[in-house]
Amino acid sequence: MNPTEFNQKIAEVRNDRDRGASELARYCLDILAWAARELPVDEVTPWRETLFRFACELAETRPSMAPIANLLRQWREALARDCIMELPLARHTAVARAEALIALSRRAVIECADHTAGLLGSNRTVMTHSFSSTVLEVCRLLKDTGLRMIVTESRPREEGRQLARQLSSWGVPTTYITDAQMGVFVARADAVLVGADSLLADGAIVNKAGTHLLALAAQENKVAFYVCCESFKRHEAGESPAMEEMSQTELGVPDWPAVTVRNVYFEVTPARLVSAWIDEKGVRHRIEKP
Amino acid sequence: MNPTEFNQKIAEVRNDRDRGASELARYCLDILAWAARELPVDEVTPWRETLFRFACELAETRPSMAPIANLLRQWREALARDCIMELPLARHTAVARAEALIALSRRAVIECADHTAGLLGSNRTVMTHSFSSTVLEVCRLLKDTGLRMIVTESRPREEGRQLARQLSSWGVPTTYITDAQMGVFVARADAVLVGADSLLADGAIVNKAGTHLLALAAQENKVAFYVCCESFKRHEAGESPAMEEMSQTELGVPDWPAVTVRNVYFEVTPARLVSAWIDEKGVRHRIEKP
Repeated sequence: MNPTEFNQKIAEVRNDRDRGASELARYCLDILAWAARELPVDEVTPWRETLFRFACELAETRPSMAPIANLLRQWREALARDCIMELPLARHTAVARAEALIALSRRAVIECADHTAGLLGSNRTVMTHSFSSTVLEVCRLLKDTGLRMIVTESRPREEGRQLARQLSSWGVPTTYITDAQMGVFVARADAVLVGADSLLADGAIVNKAGTHLLALAAQENKVAFYVCCESFKRHEAGESPAMEEMSQTELGVPDWPAVTVRNVYFEVTPARLVSAWIDEKGVRHRIEKP
Repeated sequence: MNPTEFNQKIAEVRNDRDRGASELARYCLDILAWAARELPVDEVTPWRETLFRFACELAETRPSMAPIANLLRQWREALARDCIMELPLARHTAVARAEALIALSRRAVIECADHTAGLLGSNRTVMTHSFSSTVLEVCRLLKDTGLRMIVTESRPREEGRQLARQLSSWGVPTTYITDAQMGVFVARADAVLVGADSLLADGAIVNKAGTHLLALAAQENKVAFYVCCESFKRHEAGESPAMEEMSQTELGVPDWPAVTVRNVYFEVTPARLVSAWIDEKGVRHRIEKP
């Protein structure tokens, strides 16, 4: 892997609209494993310095997605700790570290989904917004237990289609609606379940735009609002991450002179609208303030 | 006009997705004026009976749109009151009654917009959802006073495009967003302004799906939520009107076996989320309950 190839990967991660935060974080670890294996240098010091730089650059590509920064920081720290001076072994160990973190992330998703399925129970109507691979895993676990889903289309990219298609292939009775109908249909759900791209220190979540509206509508209708996301999604820094904005062309409208098209992908939903957070360790219910 | 032509008009009104409630009500009066003028009968009694039936059938086409029922009832009542037994004069009078109600409806919209523009004032950022001809008239009145607009696309038919195009032609700086971004952008508005298809007895409004979400987000952000609609939009009956559902094909998704596509056009936004109602008589602010 040369710097040009790496820059192509950086651009690919930055422009990715299909993968969720966890999946993209694992893809970043794949890229780093590839770089660790293939970087065309003969000495361990420039090899390690380049990898450090790559990891830092990748970590900054998607500010709304905490797991990328978190998993890549863990990988960098392991690389620094290992401090192997023999290049072939250093390459081998760095790859193994990436693979171990990928496995850890995958296991966290599965355990998180397992706790969430237990919390929801059988014969439930669950509403979601956007596409979360953790929510999909929960649906897989519950698909033969009378689960019914309500799925929003999730403009502009309409990730809801992908989810509806998968649910249909499992035979899960699914209602598919526009985002604007969230307020109409949330009352028919036993619970709302969303994933998250990041979890802030105070319990607020960063997720696809529209999540905040769904949380408000759930509260209005006294429907539980659950967030399932692995602890890798915790945003450690004090400040809220930047809310990424994508291309205006995704809205598919003409270029009107006085009109500015906005396409902010993510938004913060405050902790007070969340009924419970589920991660790989279990369920944490919100404690009502008196 | 024969019954076949009338049934075509009924279908046209039932399937209309472009006109708002007031405009469609005026179009129904146009249809009745045409029928009053052209019905191929020689006696006043079958002429009047047929017109009554036509007016009743038209009034029932769009349950979410109160002005249709209201204006057509007023027309029917005038027809019964006038009770002219000479057919040419009866035809002429019925047409004049329809034209007078059309003018009354138009004037009500203009006066309602005038009061609304006065309430908003100059140099304001106003957010709206869907397309309302009354809101458009407010924008026309304020377009040279520093007005800025935030417009949602309003899936599935994307009426927001029509509004954005018109605002752009007036040079009104406009932000165009997906419905899912309402919660992100409402905080940047000085006020939310929507029209309504019907106004319920308790002050709740019937408007395009998504309005309730915008009202919740406005409340969350302490942004005023105004409804401008003429008094013809009052729904007089005790019960809420049916919320019309349109064709599933408008969402443009494939036919997945386990998936039911829903396309509910209208929803009720409760009165407690409305800051003020504006009609042709003036502004009525909500009185906070202690």
